[in-house]
Amino acid sequence: MTSIRYSSWADGLRSSDIAEFLRMGNEPEMLSLAQGVPYPASYPVEKISGIIESLVKNNPESIFPYGHPQGSLRSREAVVKRMNRRGVYGISTDNVVMTSGSTAAMDIITRMTMNAGDTIIIEAPTFMGCLDSIKNWGLNLVEVPIDDDGIRTDLLRDTLVRLRNDGIHPKMIYLMSNYHNPAGIMISQERRKELPAIADEFNCFIAEDDAYSELLYDDEDQTPVKAYDTTGSVFYLGSFSKLVAPGLRVGWAIVPDELVQTWNYCRPMYDVGSPSINQEIIAELHENDWLEDHIKTLIKGYRSRRDAMIGALEENMPDGCSWTPAHGGFYVWVTTPECVDVDKLIETSVKNNVLYFTGKFFYLDHHNHGHFRLCFSRPYEDVIVEGVKRIAKALKEEMVKKG
Amino acid sequence: MTSIRYSSWADGLRSSDIAEFLRMGNEPEMLSLAQGVPYPASYPVEKISGIIESLVKNNPESIFPYGHPQGSLRSREAVVKRMNRRGVYGISTDNVVMTSGSTAAMDIITRMTMNAGDTIIIEAPTFMGCLDSIKNWGLNLVEVPIDDDGIRTDLLRDTLVRLRNDGIHPKMIYLMSNYHNPAGIMISQERRKELPAIADEFNCFIAEDDAYSELLYDDEDQTPVKAYDTTGSVFYLGSFSKLVAPGLRVGWAIVPDELVQTWNYCRPMYDVGSPSINQEIIAELHENDWLEDHIKTLIKGYRSRRDAMIGALEENMPDGCSWTPAHGGFYVWVTTPECVDVDKLIETSVKNNVLYFTGKFFYLDHHNHGHFRLCFSRPYEDVIVEGVKRIAKALKEEMVKKG
Repeated sequence: MTSIRYSSWADGLRSSDIAEFLRMGNEPEMLSLAQGVPYPASYPVEKISGIIESLVKNNPESIFPYGHPQGSLRSREAVVKRMNRRGVYGISTDNVVMTSGSTAAMDIITRMTMNAGDTIIIEAPTFMGCLDSIKNWGLNLVEVPIDDDGIRTDLLRDTLVRLRNDGIHPKMIYLMSNYHNPAGIMISQERRKELPAIADEFNCFIAEDDAYSELLYDDEDQTPVKAYDTTGSVFYLGSFSKLVAPGLRVGWAIVPDELVQTWNYCRPMYDVGSPSINQEIIAELHENDWLEDHIKTLIKGYRSRRDAMIGALEENMPDGCSWTPAHGGFYVWVTTPECVDVDKLIETSVKNNVLYFTGKFFYLDHHNHGHFRLCFSRPYEDVIVEGVKRIAKALKEEMVKKG
Repeated sequence: MTSIRYSSWADGLRSSDIAEFLRMGNEPEMLSLAQGVPYPASYPVEKISGIIESLVKNNPESIFPYGHPQGSLRSREAVVKRMNRRGVYGISTDNVVMTSGSTAAMDIITRMTMNAGDTIIIEAPTFMGCLDSIKNWGLNLVEVPIDDDGIRTDLLRDTLVRLRNDGIHPKMIYLMSNYHNPAGIMISQERRKELPAIADEFNCFIAEDDAYSELLYDDEDQTPVKAYDTTGSVFYLGSFSKLVAPGLRVGWAIVPDELVQTWNYCRPMYDVGSPSINQEIIAELHENDWLEDHIKTLIKGYRSRRDAMIGALEENMPDGCSWTPAHGGFYVWVTTPECVDVDKLIETSVKNNVLYFTGKFFYLDHHNHGHFRLCFSRPYEDVIVEGVKRIAKALKEEMVKKG
């Protein structure tokens, strides 16, 4: 029997506990406030059906052969328009690469720019999908804390200076500007304006992950960091997973011209390129601004879920707890009183059939730091309210025990 | 201006000359016998249109949400049936993972099993896509020659013994059993039977890349190496790119149970998973054995092109040249007399507006070894004949100069 010898990358993932955790979400009685996935009625079923029918009949050459590694021109044109509307100008289709979503984009960008031993700055907390993979490449990850206004730019600068004094020159700063996962906050526009200059000063790149782009429920300014980038130091990563459907696996990145050429050499080695048909569906959805109207409908659906969750938190959570407002995106980040053991809390919650992510999945040190993440994107409002009630009950019990 | 610092993996690809080479194929006057792509009329346009229409209307939940990292159950069931028909038994859907094609499968399997410094055995010559990417990971590649019966199993064993004596234990043997790219040959059934035992003896894996699976034009035995694997030492990689359409980006791998679990941890970090809709199209094409009939049609189309190329070679090539028979697949591997400078030959050919790959793209040392590769899959028969005539003319001129 041949025995499998894994790479250190795979060995690290094998010992990760996320997969095990998510499996619990499949229990039929479990209310899940865990996974950030769209609600089923959000998928534009009829529209896509019509698009594919017409694509296959009228333009089969656009969808069946190998595509270009940079992505189809039509979908890149649609992306340029989207970005213009978001306040990002001075880019053309030459700066756009189509991806299989933000995870895939981060993976290939990491691979294109990082060698073992290189340093990446990440936010604390940050998106675990990214964390889990990257840390196993033998990369040096350095955390910079966030607050209600996003990444602490003062501490970011301090960290970069400290590292430089130690002879360490990070290549990338990975951050989420809008509706942070897990923290649900937005970086303030003041800090966004500072960030490209900081990156340029220290000759590193910002990877701006905007996977929940445009799912904004309140009157906030969501202009991306990329809009303030005058020196080509920001890679912007967008995704259609939440705007259309995750099953299509289409996203995009805005990168400097020079990187596009390298992308076109590298992408064929990775997976040849994204499927053509999926990109053409995305391009077609942009015709006559159909997608813009669809996003308005999505925003109504998500806003109502967000309101249900925030309302239930206000009504049920004990004193001493706080949470982020979720102006957009899928997540509310809850802070518990210091006395609460969040690991115990999740244990009790699971017994009460409600699942969510504890804070430890989002920090390098794998500690909870008194936080957990709730996601309101998929369930109906009554399920969200019931889930929050059960968590609040468990939390109060924990607090009484400790109290 | 922030300057991009690339990884050694990307830097290696940036200096590769394949992309530059293929760009010549886009010149309007150029006859291309270079890229291994299906002929446009081969795409099952109407059938797929009908499938998608019905999928979107009747089963949208199967195609819009995130899929499972292992792939959809229906497509895995279809794969098990396919493999059974090829003589591979004793596998279940638990052994199948759906991929985004063989390149993507090789890429993730390499990443899951290899650390920098690890050794892979490859055939000489071998598929350049694989070569180009893998060599930049800091892996040690060791070539074993092939002949008309495929990889020389005697030399493979010698090589493994020699390496073992040097304390080197390769993790993987990468080979193409059917219609080798570029060499167009098939591994003999005798050697196929030997291979799993060799792999098991030296505790390494065989990655059997069968990307042209089932496109067989003559009466040959195409039972894969995997059929003789009793110890779980063969990873089989299949693809629907040539059986259906490359634009769909769907393939599969048959791997040991234990690896599947690791795959399910790793794939989400890579690109989350293959798009659901693309997999469901593949599953539907298997209903009522529709795809089997389609493959019969493809075989007629490719056989006719193969016959045109072999006929033109017989009629036009000077004495001293030989070529492989292309019992299946897309490629004919031509051997020139020793006096011919293949680099000069391609230069003249390009001036005469015909493009193909010289041998050097398929060897580690980047020398031609007196070979070039012709591909007959895409052009019409008259274009193939005209292309071969121009190459033969240039070849005769080269030989006269030398001789």
